[in-house]
Amino acid sequence: MNTTTNERLQLAYAAQESRTFYSAWPESPRAYAEDGMQSGLLAFQSLLIQNFVGIQTQGCEGWLGEEISPYLMTGLGIKYPAFSPDTLIQNAESAQKIWSSTPIDVRATILIDALDRVANRFFEIAYATMHTTGQSFLMGFQASGPHANDRALEVLAMAFKELNRFPSDINWVKNMGKFDLTLQKNYKAIPKGVALVIGCSTFPTWNTVPGLFGSLMTGNVGIVKPHPKSVLPIAIVVAEMQKALVAAGLPASVVQLGVDTLANPIAKKLAEHSAVKIIDYTGGSAFGEYIESLQGKTVFTEKSGVNSVIIESVSDAAAVFSNIAFSASLYSGQMCTAPQNIFVPSAGIHTPDGIMSYDAVFSGIANAIQNLVENPKMGSGILGAIQNDATNKRIKAISLGKRIALQSMPVPNAEFADARTASPVVIAVEADDITTWKQECFGPILFVVKTLDAAHSLQLASESAESLGAITCLCYSNDIAYMNEVESTMNKVFTPVSFNFTGSAFVNQHAAFSDFHVTGGNPSGNATFTDAQFVNRRFVWVGNRKM
Amino acid sequence: MNTTTNERLQLAYAAQESRTFYSAWPESPRAYAEDGMQSGLLAFQSLLIQNFVGIQTQGCEGWLGEEISPYLMTGLGIKYPAFSPDTLIQNAESAQKIWSSTPIDVRATILIDALDRVANRFFEIAYATMHTTGQSFLMGFQASGPHANDRALEVLAMAFKELNRFPSDINWVKNMGKFDLTLQKNYKAIPKGVALVIGCSTFPTWNTVPGLFGSLMTGNVGIVKPHPKSVLPIAIVVAEMQKALVAAGLPASVVQLGVDTLANPIAKKLAEHSAVKIIDYTGGSAFGEYIESLQGKTVFTEKSGVNSVIIESVSDAAAVFSNIAFSASLYSGQMCTAPQNIFVPSAGIHTPDGIMSYDAVFSGIANAIQNLVENPKMGSGILGAIQNDATNKRIKAISLGKRIALQSMPVPNAEFADARTASPVVIAVEADDITTWKQECFGPILFVVKTLDAAHSLQLASESAESLGAITCLCYSNDIAYMNEVESTMNKVFTPVSFNFTGSAFVNQHAAFSDFHVTGGNPSGNATFTDAQFVNRRFVWVGNRKM
Repeated sequence: MNTTTNERLQLAYAAQESRTFYSAWPESPRAYAEDGMQSGLLAFQSLLIQNFVGIQTQGCEGWLGEEISPYLMTGLGIKYPAFSPDTLIQNAESAQKIWSSTPIDVRATILIDALDRVANRFFEIAYATMHTTGQSFLMGFQASGPHANDRALEVLAMAFKELNRFPSDINWVKNMGKFDLTLQKNYKAIPKGVALVIGCSTFPTWNTVPGLFGSLMTGNVGIVKPHPKSVLPIAIVVAEMQKALVAAGLPASVVQLGVDTLANPIAKKLAEHSAVKIIDYTGGSAFGEYIESLQGKTVFTEKSGVNSVIIESVSDAAAVFSNIAFSASLYSGQMCTAPQNIFVPSAGIHTPDGIMSYDAVFSGIANAIQNLVENPKMGSGILGAIQNDATNKRIKAISLGKRIALQSMPVPNAEFADARTASPVVIAVEADDITTWKQECFGPILFVVKTLDAAHSLQLASESAESLGAITCLCYSNDIAYMNEVESTMNKVFTPVSFNFTGSAFVNQHAAFSDFHVTGGNPSGNATFTDAQFVNRRFVWVGNRKM
Repeated sequence: MNTTTNERLQLAYAAQESRTFYSAWPESPRAYAEDGMQSGLLAFQSLLIQNFVGIQTQGCEGWLGEEISPYLMTGLGIKYPAFSPDTLIQNAESAQKIWSSTPIDVRATILIDALDRVANRFFEIAYATMHTTGQSFLMGFQASGPHANDRALEVLAMAFKELNRFPSDINWVKNMGKFDLTLQKNYKAIPKGVALVIGCSTFPTWNTVPGLFGSLMTGNVGIVKPHPKSVLPIAIVVAEMQKALVAAGLPASVVQLGVDTLANPIAKKLAEHSAVKIIDYTGGSAFGEYIESLQGKTVFTEKSGVNSVIIESVSDAAAVFSNIAFSASLYSGQMCTAPQNIFVPSAGIHTPDGIMSYDAVFSGIANAIQNLVENPKMGSGILGAIQNDATNKRIKAISLGKRIALQSMPVPNAEFADARTASPVVIAVEADDITTWKQECFGPILFVVKTLDAAHSLQLASESAESLGAITCLCYSNDIAYMNEVESTMNKVFTPVSFNFTGSAFVNQHAAFSDFHVTGGNPSGNATFTDAQFVNRRFVWVGNRKM
């Protein structure tokens, strides 16, 4: 691109302020180099079974890595430099002196340069994402590539806007009657300190870069603590960020990668360190609540949620079932935005052909999923693989003794015979069987909950969002009054509603610059990508006065 | 005023964005009605020794009040309607349904109307402030009147700006290759719930209205829990707010006054109630830390701090001592912005006439204070009275056995013979006597701390700000390198610095629209008047999508 840093940030901020469609990096792999897939695959393969190259190793205290490809079911064999928490903090504090005094424009230029460098490795990152998270190639490309870069740019643009909100210097003049009192004043955005970003196993870059770029842009230094099973995608990103820093004459350790293992985790030691002032966290609720409970830290969390679908009436049942099937199957239900509980009145739903019974909805959804999974051109490309074996065990355990319209089954994969896969199980439950459905069942698990009526459906969805958290809610209705009631009731528990999605609109997709991801108002998380708070909480305005 | 709500908010926001001088209500009593003092006094007197009128009493469960005038040393005899925490919450939740759906423009118009109504009672509020806090008439007028109104308007303008940051409705169009995907999207600022504002005894309106107006403007309902010894000024404000609400056809209980007594406090019961989502608190650190530790609440605090003066060199010693004397004497050191510790090198300070010794600085400050206190035209008008007897006891206790240049003494008051007064005590301490000076000693207590050199002074001031909190720092120096070092070192512990203030510039005065009050970055508090976070943390953005 030949537009300047400032122009790019203005463009990105204008898009998010107007919430209109914008993308700085196109989401289609076809928009990139023709040989991208081929050379990306080769680049990915060249990283396997050796120490990871391109990242800062100074002071490295060993090498470790334990990633396993959900497609190959073998270890990747990549080892990353290991640093103790104390070394990471020491490096960070030393880099901070330089980074916090680096002018805002320079920081922005370096961080955008980093994103451009990352864009040159989108294909390689896509394969890295596939073979750590189990995402399909296309999803890995989009989520870890352009969509992650867009989310990072969104944060940079918001931070740039906020950092420039107040003037750096002014003359303040107050008339005191017989004379003017004049003071010179300045206003400084002082960074809080060392920022820790704790990543998750399923979206190692998409969920990490917003907080990371937000903290760096506002003058803090970053330590990325990835999930030990999903390091490679973010390791490539950190490597490119370090290159951009070094190219600008700054220390690589402005951003560091702090890798650990499941057996010897370092997240708590880092989080509790007095130098760590900011923590971004994506992952399970128990650890997230611990992170939120730490006193004296500025914390941004995305924890688990339980997402609802409410069906009251439909114009085209087949289109609705097909849409739900896609959203539930995409990455095998391992998205934080995927639906889990589908609330259907016991008396059925309204359709143009009259009432469709609860049982017909139940089997209709199951059939739509089966068609998708068994379609050789779609199945594996949509469902991908299962990141963690615990998910397969969960599906088996939850299915026992239930009324099931569609059992979870392996997803045929022509390319990877050993892939760990599982299609969604579709289970019928009564509304009062809350020990079954009113909990997070991560993975491809769908409950079709039989409710008293549409009002009851809404009540259950709202209570669930309030107590367990929710990131999305999908509603099908042609009744304007009911739609308004659903919107206001779910919004009160800080849950966004998507209405009557069919075709190529899916509830699990939140568009950068337009859709807020997680509201921050219910237990699914305390922050959102990206409002002003997401950047403003990372620094403090201090004003000085001189006579 | 004949400008519209929108114009007034735009004007106020433009001032705060540019940080230039602005005042929507002039600070001089002379700018108001000629008979203001006379009619204000009569209005105040008419409130004494009876139940407070003008405030909502529906569901009132008794009457209570225990205010004592620090000038008269007798009880005011005013009783306020008492409500149990449960009744307050119930009223709040019922009002919330209506208030949260009241359009932003209407909320703004009502809240500005409330400020205009408050302005009509500035003189009465000034007397109410005098006879609860011990402030002088002029300070009570300014702080509880125009300055408080300006701080409230500042928050309204910031909230109005932020609430309108994103469009309420858009069409989002994404080209999908062969077709466009179009979604209708809306964005709503959803209020968090019931907002509690816990006031302090010394600035009952100035410290209360920013949080209160911020919460109300963003759609939350408010419960004001004043300090039981300083109710009247904010009771008048709440009464005027309720009038503005009722005049607009809305329930008075959108804002409620929840009075308690020292013996039967209700703050904890309210703060811990599940319906209370937002808490603004001003007061001591111990209770403030308890408030900050409450999980699931959005909390804004201003706690105690210890403010430093650093003297390295001066151009005009007399002007400097006179400035410090004024800042230390204003409201008898009971301002959260008042200096406590004056760091002076043991080798003395640089002056145009050569080195001035530590002892000369010590006695110079003491003499300047004595001149001010004993000046019959200035003394009582600047020092006012002591709000709480504990302050007088503290002065006595801390003075025992110390090297003292000026003992605390009564401040002659021609008008109020019984006034509880105390002038600043000026104590010499060694730097290593940290059990004496490195603690908050609220009230008119000044320590002149003897340091190794100017660098040591800065180190001590910075460590104190980091561990105990600081709201202000005053520095006297003509050495540019030293000034830069002071600014960057104190700013790193999130403390603003005022340099070389003499004449009519005083470190304790933070101007609305221009000076951030408390940074939120050190233990003196976690929020600031007024940055974007101060309003954004009170609501949540939720976006909905329709096909």
